[in-house]
Amino acid sequence: MSSFDQDYLFVCETARKAMIYQTSAETLEWDERTGMPPHGGDYRAQQVAALRGHAHQLRTGARYGEALERLSDQTAGSVLEATNVRELRRDYQRDQRLPQELVESASEMIVKGQQAWEKARHGNDYAGFAPVLKQIIALKQDIGGRLAEGTDQSPYEALMDEYEPGAKTSELAPVFENLKGRLATLIGELADGPTPVDVSLLKATTDTEAQKRFVSSVCQAVGFDFQRGRLDETSHPFCTTLGPSDCRILSRYEANWFPAGIYAGLHEAGHGMYEQGLDQMQFALPMGSYASLGVHESQSRLWENQVGRSRSFITWVLPQVQATFPNVFGTCDVETLYRCVNHVQPSLIRVEADEATYNLHIAIRFELEQQLIAGDVSVDDLPEAWNAQYQQTLGIMPDSDANGVLQDVHWSAGLIGYFPTYTLGNLIAAQLFDHARAEITGLDQDIERGEFSGLLGWLQTNVHSHGRRYSSLELVRQVTGKGLSSDHLLDQLEGKLKPIYGI
Amino acid sequence: MSSFDQDYLFVCETARKAMIYQTSAETLEWDERTGMPPHGGDYRAQQVAALRGHAHQLRTGARYGEALERLSDQTAGSVLEATNVRELRRDYQRDQRLPQELVESASEMIVKGQQAWEKARHGNDYAGFAPVLKQIIALKQDIGGRLAEGTDQSPYEALMDEYEPGAKTSELAPVFENLKGRLATLIGELADGPTPVDVSLLKATTDTEAQKRFVSSVCQAVGFDFQRGRLDETSHPFCTTLGPSDCRILSRYEANWFPAGIYAGLHEAGHGMYEQGLDQMQFALPMGSYASLGVHESQSRLWENQVGRSRSFITWVLPQVQATFPNVFGTCDVETLYRCVNHVQPSLIRVEADEATYNLHIAIRFELEQQLIAGDVSVDDLPEAWNAQYQQTLGIMPDSDANGVLQDVHWSAGLIGYFPTYTLGNLIAAQLFDHARAEITGLDQDIERGEFSGLLGWLQTNVHSHGRRYSSLELVRQVTGKGLSSDHLLDQLEGKLKPIYGI
Repeated sequence: MSSFDQDYLFVCETARKAMIYQTSAETLEWDERTGMPPHGGDYRAQQVAALRGHAHQLRTGARYGEALERLSDQTAGSVLEATNVRELRRDYQRDQRLPQELVESASEMIVKGQQAWEKARHGNDYAGFAPVLKQIIALKQDIGGRLAEGTDQSPYEALMDEYEPGAKTSELAPVFENLKGRLATLIGELADGPTPVDVSLLKATTDTEAQKRFVSSVCQAVGFDFQRGRLDETSHPFCTTLGPSDCRILSRYEANWFPAGIYAGLHEAGHGMYEQGLDQMQFALPMGSYASLGVHESQSRLWENQVGRSRSFITWVLPQVQATFPNVFGTCDVETLYRCVNHVQPSLIRVEADEATYNLHIAIRFELEQQLIAGDVSVDDLPEAWNAQYQQTLGIMPDSDANGVLQDVHWSAGLIGYFPTYTLGNLIAAQLFDHARAEITGLDQDIERGEFSGLLGWLQTNVHSHGRRYSSLELVRQVTGKGLSSDHLLDQLEGKLKPIYGI
Repeated sequence: MSSFDQDYLFVCETARKAMIYQTSAETLEWDERTGMPPHGGDYRAQQVAALRGHAHQLRTGARYGEALERLSDQTAGSVLEATNVRELRRDYQRDQRLPQELVESASEMIVKGQQAWEKARHGNDYAGFAPVLKQIIALKQDIGGRLAEGTDQSPYEALMDEYEPGAKTSELAPVFENLKGRLATLIGELADGPTPVDVSLLKATTDTEAQKRFVSSVCQAVGFDFQRGRLDETSHPFCTTLGPSDCRILSRYEANWFPAGIYAGLHEAGHGMYEQGLDQMQFALPMGSYASLGVHESQSRLWENQVGRSRSFITWVLPQVQATFPNVFGTCDVETLYRCVNHVQPSLIRVEADEATYNLHIAIRFELEQQLIAGDVSVDDLPEAWNAQYQQTLGIMPDSDANGVLQDVHWSAGLIGYFPTYTLGNLIAAQLFDHARAEITGLDQDIERGEFSGLLGWLQTNVHSHGRRYSSLELVRQVTGKGLSSDHLLDQLEGKLKPIYGI
């Protein structure tokens, strides 16, 4: 065996071993968010911290780092090996900047943070949550500072780099500004459009147990594999991977807001199908991992919006909706449901926001979290800053912290620098979908017939199979032949929404 | 800090750390048995093996062993410390006989074994399961041999010692023989009794969803704490502890056999209340752990049988049964239901067996598993040996392997030497309950009113609070003032069952 092969085997084995502990922690976190007994939280936090700490220890061992250094000086035999070495070394260089104790205390804090958030959101008690959030921000400032040291990144960029490798605020800020401008114009035009959309139909009461069965069958139809995954219920939908053939997606259901369950379900199924489309043999290695959170979000949004809110999809799904909820949707036609699910209205809750206003919610968080890490806004002042931003950007004022600053789990879970990946995902989804449509003959007709395997296969070939070979921006160029542009999303939105509103 | 205190702290910290990994593995196993996607099994086996292996590594470290040796040479300041040192040293001496690789391969084999068993039972395919069982038996023979080496135990006794410290086949065999004799006589008498019991009522169809809610409310009423635990559904009921405040119990429900769900529920709630009654501050240490599996089973059986099949309990529960299942039980009276749940009939399935025949099922397994480990019966010959034993002991012949040798999860899970603890538990339950009844004024009336806290408190004080301070036989003597005797169980059964059958 060559010295390259020896080192490569050792490195892969270590990465796989570390992943065992990471996925174990993720299983415990999934359980925590689906049904753990109320008093189980303190010990669960200790368990997750120990498991994540152990994974970190394996990923920062001296022998592992040395092997990666030697490997990176040699020429790999294949793209697969080269990508694995490059990306594992990247992770190593990042990980070894963080001492074991910091990783463990961050993990424990994050579990406690989510518990505190759950309670605070439920009781609309920001003051009760603030002390925990302060500790989280301080920890993330510490982590960001350590990661940024000696680089050209700011601490915030260093945090964001974990989710979106190579992303720079200097590149993102103008994209957000441009989006904000054109979106504000569009939203203003729609508000004055001659044919406003009435969504009272979506507020009629539907049985949530029936919703669950319906969403499950739609997720199965689009291609989420229930032999290798499952769908559960939670307060804040997410997708998590517990093993190469164990992907869990979670949705939530509201009796009086029909789109909540189905679009969260499609969204998470999109994430899940990306995970299920990755190379199983490369599980735990970069070539079997997602490229970035922006790319991940592009997969969820593509199924939720480009597919799920299209006229073709509504044409396919309507008979099932009618059959499952005859009292509410029995006499509904395609046009009515299509208009309803494309309703645009500035609102308080990001996860319920329409496609047009959604990115304004992200822009607010992107700005505020930069200020939190830079120390320009304090945790105590955050609700006020939040409310002011909502007033200014969306023209509405949160009626409570529960519907304002407390609505997202992210900051309580230590996910800072994560929000901008949502908007990146939206832009990538739009650009990929335009390209898929050009390459797949009859895609709209396929969707209308409930035939989704062509699109899923295209995504598997063009996106999933590459793992972490390309960064998000490289991937977009690789697939579509062009750099990332916000024109695809904006053109799609204008092209779809203006006719709906009679403009 | 004294050298004792230093060593003691280190030892406790190590035990707590090891328990983090053990309880993480148990969380993953709970998930595997409640809803893991079908294809998740291979990776799950790797995860559990790594976690259990890591716990074993911590529990067999040289520094840990040395500290325990030093501690055992000194005088502890309290019973609590002395018990923790004595029992942790006992565990250490046992654990360090097993090499890390053996523990890991056993863990992995056990997860795979359970998956193979699940499949084989479902498809009535013993031949498909046999190769896996052979590997498990070989592993357990290896483990038993290593544990027994240089002691006066046989390999089988060394395996049993894990579940029932200090138990000897030479002591148990006569108890089983005596029980078998008196029980066979009793069962024969009942079969010829002038007033046989008609259980067709229990076979009427009841909604399993309603059963679930009913069983949950009964578990809550007897004292299982849902803030620190939860109840789920599985194919083979069990109880597992995932943390000091996270105890999971699982039952199963049959639409056409009403007792299945409620008595499995009461049984597992009994286990769960024992776990919840242990000293939380001593979690992961012997003083916060159950004494033995025999004692554990005494707690489950006491709630299932001594409480759950008493006339007082039936008097209390009947109105709830009537309200929940009015079509089936609407006109049922106490006497009818009491007679039904105390029906005695030799049958094929252990977990559905009545109190009288139950211990005959155990006697068969006790005998067969000794022969398997000693090599006196082969895995290939096991179904035949099983069927012959059933014919001889219970007078009935299994109609299939699924209802015969494949009915229990235990051997597939590597639990060998475990079955005799069930009968020990039955004997201990009967003796403890006789004593509780003598000490708690009006216990029967309490049960009739649905007031269970007096009995639970008595068990907490007299059994739960002692942790592993006493062995099972010492505990019985400590609480009841007498050595363990099978008279309590036999007298209770005769006193209850003969009148029911008109003898």
